[in-house]
Amino acid sequence: MSGNTFGTLFTVTTFGESHGPAIGCIVDGCPPGLPLSEADIQLELDRRRPGTSRHVTQRQEPDTVEILSGVYQGVTTGTPISLLIRNQDQRSKDYGNITDSFRPGHADFTYWKKYGIRDPRGGGRSSARLTAPVVAAGAIAKKWLLAKFGTTFTGGMRQIGEVVIPFQSWEHVNQNPFFAPTADAAVLQQLEDYMDSIRKEGDSIGARVDVVAQHVPAGLGEPIYDKLDAEIAYAMMGVNAVKGVEIGDGFGCIGQKGSQHGDELTEAGFLSNHAGGVLGGISTGQDIVVSMAIKPTSSIRIPRRSLDVNGDPVMVETFGRHDPCVGIRATPIAEAMLALVLMDHALRHRAQCGEKV
Amino acid sequence: MSGNTFGTLFTVTTFGESHGPAIGCIVDGCPPGLPLSEADIQLELDRRRPGTSRHVTQRQEPDTVEILSGVYQGVTTGTPISLLIRNQDQRSKDYGNITDSFRPGHADFTYWKKYGIRDPRGGGRSSARLTAPVVAAGAIAKKWLLAKFGTTFTGGMRQIGEVVIPFQSWEHVNQNPFFAPTADAAVLQQLEDYMDSIRKEGDSIGARVDVVAQHVPAGLGEPIYDKLDAEIAYAMMGVNAVKGVEIGDGFGCIGQKGSQHGDELTEAGFLSNHAGGVLGGISTGQDIVVSMAIKPTSSIRIPRRSLDVNGDPVMVETFGRHDPCVGIRATPIAEAMLALVLMDHALRHRAQCGEKV
Amino acid sequence: MSGNTFGTLFTVTTFGESHGPAIGCIVDGCPPGLPLSEADIQLELDRRRPGTSRHVTQRQEPDTVEILSGVYQGVTTGTPISLLIRNQDQRSKDYGNITDSFRPGHADFTYWKKYGIRDPRGGGRSSARLTAPVVAAGAIAKKWLLAKFGTTFTGGMRQIGEVVIPFQSWEHVNQNPFFAPTADAAVLQQLEDYMDSIRKEGDSIGARVDVVAQHVPAGLGEPIYDKLDAEIAYAMMGVNAVKGVEIGDGFGCIGQKGSQHGDELTEAGFLSNHAGGVLGGISTGQDIVVSMAIKPTSSIRIPRRSLDVNGDPVMVETFGRHDPCVGIRATPIAEAMLALVLMDHALRHRAQCGEKV
Amino acid sequence: MSGNTFGTLFTVTTFGESHGPAIGCIVDGCPPGLPLSEADIQLELDRRRPGTSRHVTQRQEPDTVEILSGVYQGVTTGTPISLLIRNQDQRSKDYGNITDSFRPGHADFTYWKKYGIRDPRGGGRSSARLTAPVVAAGAIAKKWLLAKFGTTFTGGMRQIGEVVIPFQSWEHVNQNPFFAPTADAAVLQQLEDYMDSIRKEGDSIGARVDVVAQHVPAGLGEPIYDKLDAEIAYAMMGVNAVKGVEIGDGFGCIGQKGSQHGDELTEAGFLSNHAGGVLGGISTGQDIVVSMAIKPTSSIRIPRRSLDVNGDPVMVETFGRHDPCVGIRATPIAEAMLALVLMDHALRHRAQCGEKV
Repeated sequence: MSGNTFGTLFTVTTFGESHGPAIGCIVDGCPPGLPLSEADIQLELDRRRPGTSRHVTQRQEPDTVEILSGVYQGVTTGTPISLLIRNQDQRSKDYGNITDSFRPGHADFTYWKKYGIRDPRGGGRSSARLTAPVVAAGAIAKKWLLAKFGTTFTGGMRQIGEVVIPFQSWEHVNQNPFFAPTADAAVLQQLEDYMDSIRKEGDSIGARVDVVAQHVPAGLGEPIYDKLDAEIAYAMMGVNAVKGVEIGDGFGCIGQKGSQHGDELTEAGFLSNHAGGVLGGISTGQDIVVSMAIKPTSSIRIPRRSLDVNGDPVMVETFGRHDPCVGIRATPIAEAMLALVLMDHALRHRAQCGEKV
Repeated sequence: MSGNTFGTLFTVTTFGESHGPAIGCIVDGCPPGLPLSEADIQLELDRRRPGTSRHVTQRQEPDTVEILSGVYQGVTTGTPISLLIRNQDQRSKDYGNITDSFRPGHADFTYWKKYGIRDPRGGGRSSARLTAPVVAAGAIAKKWLLAKFGTTFTGGMRQIGEVVIPFQSWEHVNQNPFFAPTADAAVLQQLEDYMDSIRKEGDSIGARVDVVAQHVPAGLGEPIYDKLDAEIAYAMMGVNAVKGVEIGDGFGCIGQKGSQHGDELTEAGFLSNHAGGVLGGISTGQDIVVSMAIKPTSSIRIPRRSLDVNGDPVMVETFGRHDPCVGIRATPIAEAMLALVLMDHALRHRAQCGEKV
Repeated sequence: MSGNTFGTLFTVTTFGESHGPAIGCIVDGCPPGLPLSEADIQLELDRRRPGTSRHVTQRQEPDTVEILSGVYQGVTTGTPISLLIRNQDQRSKDYGNITDSFRPGHADFTYWKKYGIRDPRGGGRSSARLTAPVVAAGAIAKKWLLAKFGTTFTGGMRQIGEVVIPFQSWEHVNQNPFFAPTADAAVLQQLEDYMDSIRKEGDSIGARVDVVAQHVPAGLGEPIYDKLDAEIAYAMMGVNAVKGVEIGDGFGCIGQKGSQHGDELTEAGFLSNHAGGVLGGISTGQDIVVSMAIKPTSSIRIPRRSLDVNGDPVMVETFGRHDPCVGIRATPIAEAMLALVLMDHALRHRAQCGEKV
Repeated sequence: MSGNTFGTLFTVTTFGESHGPAIGCIVDGCPPGLPLSEADIQLELDRRRPGTSRHVTQRQEPDTVEILSGVYQGVTTGTPISLLIRNQDQRSKDYGNITDSFRPGHADFTYWKKYGIRDPRGGGRSSARLTAPVVAAGAIAKKWLLAKFGTTFTGGMRQIGEVVIPFQSWEHVNQNPFFAPTADAAVLQQLEDYMDSIRKEGDSIGARVDVVAQHVPAGLGEPIYDKLDAEIAYAMMGVNAVKGVEIGDGFGCIGQKGSQHGDELTEAGFLSNHAGGVLGGISTGQDIVVSMAIKPTSSIRIPRRSLDVNGDPVMVETFGRHDPCVGIRATPIAEAMLALVLMDHALRHRAQCGEKV
């Protein structure tokens, strides 16, 4: 009810604040018998980790994960898996000047309105730091789905501000600091320059990220409300700074005719994938293709008009350490969210319809 | 778990198939003391009703609602409100030729893959007819939110295929068969002509619909997973044929800088609404602005390649009665979904944080 | 949240008031492919039906069930099964004198305190009439469990007031008006006489009912909170008028030593069943044995002191038609509740641990 | 779904195994603004702590709790409260001989049947050690309920084996090692002697514990399934070793007439409390009175027949450190469970019906 648990059968309940002693989660519903070690999880956490290039926040967090339960002799037992990540590089004094003010475009204001109290240090619970436990949980889902169905996840940056990134291959994504699916040096240099200029302005910039799941079994999803695409939209829109989500052709559908959009089916399989792998809320077995629009970071150095908690006008400049483009580190997060949704629906399918062969 | 219940505290559980004896829902969690009659609900059902112009399905359904429980002497008692709508104009023989085939772009295929069995008459449970119970339930949410906070809902068609509809006023929406927010006769004529041509081709077309909630109290939403915008995305993406959802500037954010996007705040209120009324997953008190992309109807007369249930190739032509643009009747549905989300979060807020003044 | 849905994966959401137009439920999560007809359900409803002997309420309700959805060509499709039972023999005038008063021992008072409003006709939603939809839903669970695992359910009356009923065989339960597991004419006559005297006094009486599930697979249940026995206790204590629940030896355990209580296990199976078929919240594969204590009906003719809604003292005598021993019709209800719990846990098991062979 | 979360709006999700690195929980849904420190929680943990007398397990665990989130400057913020307790005195070698065998009457067997794998060290997740996080969470609920409504919780041992404990006052409960509500030296000596003899036999013994909540507001609970008494039964039956639960007169109701059982109401209040504070599943405002039957510990030194994981017969003697009467430490656990149920229902009430004055 309080919005800290993701999932229905495979659930992730997270806790923690950006500058509290620790963050983490309890993963519940994991089938027994899955080989699982901290290394499996660390691998994904390292992809999302801050401080790895000058284009992301300079906060230094090793994000070392400790498994506290649910694994015995290297194998999951079916009981809850508790994951703990200690915070190590809090610098709360950077936030001294905004303790009582609301950053424009930030959750500062709405947390205050909702709870009447908030932990202002590093954005408290609204910090993008809270995506780390999700990435950790997603690593478990990914491992199970791969073992069970051969499902794989990829994704990457498709646009930063005005710079559209021509797609070459998902293979390049982990080879550059932008998660860009290209090895084109000119494009990568353009991104470096663009991000450097944004950072020097003390400003931030939006982005578009795509994510794809391959080898998804057909038949996952629910008929009316927990449609697979509805849950993907929920998952992605819930990631910090996301303001738009598309499945398949998305907003491109507006201008399409039915004779153009509906993916024809032959004995060789589907002839196209306008649907993005979901029809009527249930997976078709094709690739699931998701796009998301990510707004520019609200914490910027450029002074902006706002109010303080007493309702008095103030100018807000944000220091602290922030990502000038939160989209950059979004790829592993989006992959994790997609994996969590599919994992949940795989278990739901099994509950009602039995084992999928 | 099985995807037929919407909401957490204010829940709507629907049932029914397009050509079964009845459709309906149980609305649970409605606060006691709300004056409620069948007329309150019928008003909204009539806006969504089929057969009201040549641009929508010609199926004739009065969609008369019967309240079976939860209301005593014209007032809600706090117990479940059961709503029943009998189906009256089934013509299942129209579907004879697709009983064993999968319409391209339709849930026929995925229901088969999920359940191994399906009710093919009129699309069974995947029919857009199943949005009627949602609209009925949404009428209750709207009434409570209006009484409690003065919240109101509007929305309308913004684009059909290539025809972008210039915005005049939401007031015009109920005055034309397209839910277009304009009284411009030339524009409306253009829409008539465009839809006539689509229909004559035996084809269908996509659309974009916007929906807005006004007078929403600040502070509604949850911090991490059940963010207000995440739940709106879930609600809207769950409406039949929706393939994309935006909150506020949506995909427009990709090209924006932080200094441009973040809505400044003064004693006179916010100076802009790029956020679309939600920050950090919690309402700001500004208008909540949502856009959705709706794909073209998959049931078209134009023959298309597909398979039958035995995996043999077939050509599929769909007769039956269908909306050539499912977007046309989407406005009351989208308003209802938005009302259900806000209602649910109003109760959630009250549970954890107490009465909102 | 509002207490009208039973179950987690196999859910029953009920609606209705004793004297409203109808009662019923939506059963969600039923696996596809189960043959199901109204006759399957009617069979169980008829066992619970009022008016079948002079020892139960004389209200005449055929309790005819209509399946509105979820079944196609005699087989479940995996979509929600909606069940409707029209009320036919309301006599609300009988309740005229208690519209504004609280019957001692009745929910009249607490509904008023909770909702600030209530439907007083026939007890409204607090009426035991609302167990009919549960029995209907339970019939579906029973049928699936029987087909899947061979699970069967029996139970019966073990004590009415001071009359302890010696156990002969569950086979006799449906052969007498008390659901007594005996064919002993003397015992049955004693029960007839005892109940006649209670009824003539205008009083009511408590009872003890046992219920047993046989051929339950081992391994159903959850480890900490949704333990199988915890959920059985929840299910049974939720039945109208139940004030105590035991699993296996129950309160008899207080005086037992561990060397006496712990059921020894040999290659031939367990040597005893003190546990009642559940250890650590998970089924052992033995019979699940449950006892419940049922309080005397609160609606009696004998005048009693109470208050009215204004807080003024009144004497309350209840006319209307009531069961002098609500325990009598409790057996089919308790069987249904037990079946619902097991069904739910069978699906939960399948979700997390895969198909049980 | 996987049975590790308690509650609906105020939720406790626990993790951990008896001999793993840590146990703990995430408490979600706590209203913001509650003063809370580790000392508040430690107080209750110390009451449940092992090793405090010779009549309980000799395992030495300080059970020191660390708050990892959700509290800022000594006050709850409305975000999840994560509680961590490191295990310190594991002695897994004591369990070497039962790694592959099933203790009669223990969850060893059923965990194996459910998951196909188990952590045998100290009983793994089925250990009563896992009640510590519940007691910690209950401390938060108790504090909020006391501040909000003045609600208080007491309880104690009423019978051990054959020794019935005459009630003097709840005040004595924390003054003796048995949680007995008496200061009678003879009774306490009798309990000492009785427990000494049980321990020397290498056996264990059952018990009966009562728990009472006072100053509970009227109107808490739900009408059909999440009845307050149903949820109390669920909570209590879910505590390790509990086999029976009663509310109010419980099994005593079987022999009662309606004229005797129904609590009469006058302007001075109720004249009796046979109902135990709940009518129709909703609180009356009277004391909530609950009894539970607790079976003897299954881990005993006396050799017993059983099987090993290969199905071969074995004799099982349990060493390790165990409570000879698990009922002794049950009082703080039962109080915590009752507090959690009431807390949850207080929030549920507020959600649907608004603030209770």
